[in-house]
Amino acid sequence: MPPLAEIRRALFASVLSDCLDAVGLMDQALPTRIRPLDEASVMVGRARTAQFMEVDGHVAGTNPYELEIALIDSLQQGDIPVFACSNPARIAPWGELLSTAAQVRGAAGALMDGAVRDIKAIRAMNFPVFHGGIGPLDSKGRGRVMAIDLPVRCAGVKVASGDLIFGDADGVVVVPQAVESAVLELAFDKIKGEKRTLDELRAGEKLGDVFAKYGIL
Amino acid sequence: MPPLAEIRRALFASVLSDCLDAVGLMDQALPTRIRPLDEASVMVGRARTAQFMEVDGHVAGTNPYELEIALIDSLQQGDIPVFACSNPARIAPWGELLSTAAQVRGAAGALMDGAVRDIKAIRAMNFPVFHGGIGPLDSKGRGRVMAIDLPVRCAGVKVASGDLIFGDADGVVVVPQAVESAVLELAFDKIKGEKRTLDELRAGEKLGDVFAKYGIL
Amino acid sequence: MPPLAEIRRALFASVLSDCLDAVGLMDQALPTRIRPLDEASVMVGRARTAQFMEVDGHVAGTNPYELEIALIDSLQQGDIPVFACSNPARIAPWGELLSTAAQVRGAAGALMDGAVRDIKAIRAMNFPVFHGGIGPLDSKGRGRVMAIDLPVRCAGVKVASGDLIFGDADGVVVVPQAVESAVLELAFDKIKGEKRTLDELRAGEKLGDVFAKYGIL
Amino acid sequence: MPPLAEIRRALFASVLSDCLDAVGLMDQALPTRIRPLDEASVMVGRARTAQFMEVDGHVAGTNPYELEIALIDSLQQGDIPVFACSNPARIAPWGELLSTAAQVRGAAGALMDGAVRDIKAIRAMNFPVFHGGIGPLDSKGRGRVMAIDLPVRCAGVKVASGDLIFGDADGVVVVPQAVESAVLELAFDKIKGEKRTLDELRAGEKLGDVFAKYGIL
Amino acid sequence: MPPLAEIRRALFASVLSDCLDAVGLMDQALPTRIRPLDEASVMVGRARTAQFMEVDGHVAGTNPYELEIALIDSLQQGDIPVFACSNPARIAPWGELLSTAAQVRGAAGALMDGAVRDIKAIRAMNFPVFHGGIGPLDSKGRGRVMAIDLPVRCAGVKVASGDLIFGDADGVVVVPQAVESAVLELAFDKIKGEKRTLDELRAGEKLGDVFAKYGIL
Amino acid sequence: MPPLAEIRRALFASVLSDCLDAVGLMDQALPTRIRPLDEASVMVGRARTAQFMEVDGHVAGTNPYELEIALIDSLQQGDIPVFACSNPARIAPWGELLSTAAQVRGAAGALMDGAVRDIKAIRAMNFPVFHGGIGPLDSKGRGRVMAIDLPVRCAGVKVASGDLIFGDADGVVVVPQAVESAVLELAFDKIKGEKRTLDELRAGEKLGDVFAKYGIL
Repeated sequence: MPPLAEIRRALFASVLSDCLDAVGLMDQALPTRIRPLDEASVMVGRARTAQFMEVDGHVAGTNPYELEIALIDSLQQGDIPVFACSNPARIAPWGELLSTAAQVRGAAGALMDGAVRDIKAIRAMNFPVFHGGIGPLDSKGRGRVMAIDLPVRCAGVKVASGDLIFGDADGVVVVPQAVESAVLELAFDKIKGEKRTLDELRAGEKLGDVFAKYGIL
Repeated sequence: MPPLAEIRRALFASVLSDCLDAVGLMDQALPTRIRPLDEASVMVGRARTAQFMEVDGHVAGTNPYELEIALIDSLQQGDIPVFACSNPARIAPWGELLSTAAQVRGAAGALMDGAVRDIKAIRAMNFPVFHGGIGPLDSKGRGRVMAIDLPVRCAGVKVASGDLIFGDADGVVVVPQAVESAVLELAFDKIKGEKRTLDELRAGEKLGDVFAKYGIL
Repeated sequence: MPPLAEIRRALFASVLSDCLDAVGLMDQALPTRIRPLDEASVMVGRARTAQFMEVDGHVAGTNPYELEIALIDSLQQGDIPVFACSNPARIAPWGELLSTAAQVRGAAGALMDGAVRDIKAIRAMNFPVFHGGIGPLDSKGRGRVMAIDLPVRCAGVKVASGDLIFGDADGVVVVPQAVESAVLELAFDKIKGEKRTLDELRAGEKLGDVFAKYGIL
Repeated sequence: MPPLAEIRRALFASVLSDCLDAVGLMDQALPTRIRPLDEASVMVGRARTAQFMEVDGHVAGTNPYELEIALIDSLQQGDIPVFACSNPARIAPWGELLSTAAQVRGAAGALMDGAVRDIKAIRAMNFPVFHGGIGPLDSKGRGRVMAIDLPVRCAGVKVASGDLIFGDADGVVVVPQAVESAVLELAFDKIKGEKRTLDELRAGEKLGDVFAKYGIL
Repeated sequence: MPPLAEIRRALFASVLSDCLDAVGLMDQALPTRIRPLDEASVMVGRARTAQFMEVDGHVAGTNPYELEIALIDSLQQGDIPVFACSNPARIAPWGELLSTAAQVRGAAGALMDGAVRDIKAIRAMNFPVFHGGIGPLDSKGRGRVMAIDLPVRCAGVKVASGDLIFGDADGVVVVPQAVESAVLELAFDKIKGEKRTLDELRAGEKLGDVFAKYGIL
Repeated sequence: MPPLAEIRRALFASVLSDCLDAVGLMDQALPTRIRPLDEASVMVGRARTAQFMEVDGHVAGTNPYELEIALIDSLQQGDIPVFACSNPARIAPWGELLSTAAQVRGAAGALMDGAVRDIKAIRAMNFPVFHGGIGPLDSKGRGRVMAIDLPVRCAGVKVASGDLIFGDADGVVVVPQAVESAVLELAFDKIKGEKRTLDELRAGEKLGDVFAKYGIL
């Protein structure tokens, strides 16, 4: 498999999405409501999952962040924490402090279906965050991580720890490990064909003719 | 009727919306979820409609883009392809290749209730796209154009081929051909009144007094 | 209580949200769909509420903006008009003219769960607007202010005239007058602890250790 | 025009809906979430509209039901109060007391996009109610009628006082006065054709053949 | 406090809802999508809460029902299990087996924001279930109880173990223990006034006059 | 494979759903909004699919029902037409005439994500219909069948012609042909274990003990 840096340099979320389609996996793209905090971000790495449970109020004397902290402190180079937030419209579990702790450990970014806060500070750090909204509400008293590194659904898409995550301005795709090498091979091929198609379209060729020749749209 | 370039230079989506209201058409603005890819875009032209049907999987041996390609290859100067996407949250039927093919033929932009992809490339081309979200999922195997140049509902608003489409940072309005000259005449009048209203408000006049004088808010 | 300018300089929506949580008020943040027109805006001031009723068509001979104009013309330095729009997906009750009239009277910004229009002009004025979408549809014939300075729900959050409103890139929080001094005191304290936490995380300390020391995440 | 009793005996909501389509009015049926409290009800009468505004809390010393009471006390034989509830998921403005007062005055039923309560008592009275849900929350402190006999949108459909309302187990249609006689004439014709179509289908004729003969499906 | 049987015999969800409003608690009614499986059910008892976390697939070797079973096996006479289902549209955590186990232990019914299954069998048992829909999907592999007897939000309404739950054909209200005696006292009073109001309305008195006399609507 | 009549007599939607889960297919149940017109219905048969495209207005001179009629006229004994309606909240493509034509040909029922009309007549015929709502709006001018016997998504669930459909009061499940015999074998086994579990729960055994013994909940 090509190194993450090569994937990051050469590929796109949309090309990977087409190649996931080609191997029969049609539900690997996060929905359009998941957006990058900075559209210039390109995020490539491996998922580390956390599943939230909704809570109604903080229980005094407990650490509401226990497993969440354990996940962050165990991050390796290139990891991407993936938060399945359960009541994603209500909580902003990610902010400047987690971004700082994750970036120090070499994380490649963060993905969540809930909201993010401290967005100016995070943008200034150049730490890629793909999120389900921007808002100030802390997770404490609203949600709590109850499981880490189990399969989750993030914004409806299955993610398991170890899956390849690719995010850019067009959105986020999840490449399961079982199809990773097949999908990457297809993707590196496809970007060549797109180049030729584009050149001929720019030259004014009919779309019908160009599609007949290369089969790419 | 004034030429498209004059309309584009002088008018605004919000003024046209007010004038459509004035002739009794209250449902001509696309909803707020339809946004420009680039807020600096101003898009003025005539609709060319395409209606998608949902499909579940590609049928081998068929061309999933047949009518879509026919529409694009038949675009004339100033045309705006309008895609009614049916399952708009799921598909991104528009991208760099279609933008290129449409721009080469002189299209004034594109409008869809579905998603768009390849957004960095499209922004770099200065091709106006008004869309219902950003995401990587191709339409192939998810939706297929089954009719072109028939009346459609794009994000709930009726659009017929030939209708005048105006989009700017405030959104998109559809001006049906039957009221086009009446609406344009009202709009060119209204922008004069707004200028006077604004000047007096800036000078600190009471809003009540200024509204009493010009009847504009 | 510190002056508005000091609050504006030193605090953040997310810190205030945490401190509202700390005094037991967990529903004071506007939902994530309410966004600033300009993410660089910081808006601090006191609410002046207006409640819309849906209408279906303009009744000739009436002034559809009567109470709305009364509210705007009565704004004081630091006030923030708060519009509860009832059918917020349909109307854009705020635009360049209201922004101008409000800014002339010293308003600190505007907040609404409905849409805003004339956004380029408003951004150029540096007038902070926090809104529920961008769109061209005027309120005339669609909604009408029927009560001002009564308690409202703006995007689901209770707001009374006189409440402290704080908005920045992370969103908007409403601080009821009854808890205002307690919340501000907590907030000025909390920002000190966050600074120390951040410094130690940047230095590579474990998140678990730093949280154990300062209790802040 | 045939008397209401004859319309009620002979026609159906679905036939009227088809005939409204035939005269070009495609948006006259209330959405499927509006249901009869009793599916055996058939309700035919003339609309009397009320428009609610959302309120947040009761203002002491005011009568929160003032206009609502005025509407009910002015009902005539065959009238149907139509409540446009604004926050329809939250309030149940209709119950046993209003049903009793309306029935005593000869009202033909009631229609609302909000909820209804006291449903067992209302069913026992045989008073037809078509509603947007069942729930216990009173309108007091949540919504208030601010206008009566003005045009409203009830669950999205335009209704004016005087419009003919027809509701049965299949739902509710609104027949505007301007097209009433044309639509009724078409409807009395159509039910004859449906009888013949049905008889031939029951006899085992091909649907294609029967549709070719009568043009009815 | 009156015994549960007396509350059940004399009161109604709508009266309790009005009295909760009267003490300033306006958010105690479950939304209209929560319905009784049998509209003839009246359910009165004390909440025992369970909070689900979403899971994506069953982890072999674990008991997915561990805490759920513990809750059911600990039910006392008059208890009502209250399930906060997290992804309520997807799972049916309640069915014939749980109904049987709960009924044997004297439970007064069950309340959940998720779905219910085996509905014919449950109706035949006369066990009251108030639910968020009907569907066949088991919770196993989709959701798991991770906490019992902690405060939850069931369909958005706060419920704590020990709260009084009242459900009938009009819906469900939650009476927190802190206001229970005050609310019950008000409710037993209010039903007397409603009787008089109703009698006078039946006799044809004007609604305005009757409301002026008793202040009840 | 057992004959359809035996499946219908012995099995339940919820048991089949559990067995589909057991073979790893977790998305085979229609969502809770799809309900039987008559809760006493049990519907077992094989899917025949139709895919609608949205249209905006009828095109004079065309037959808007062409493919729909072809599907109905080709139904065989035990077939179940499955309509994927595209804009399911808007159209009622099924009614008394189609029910009659389908029943005459031996169809086992009908399934659609759109609405149904003529519901009293259909119930009187004892023809099982599982639907996405009740409403009067005909499909003509709103939607048109553009493909039959292609794979569709009905209310989000994949259905192919030939799939086994099972519907009862708990909802509808789709059993793909590839797993049909495995799922049926599991289901006939499972109903035996449920009987024993139920008997012991009724006898007052602890749920924990009974689950430990039979592994069924």
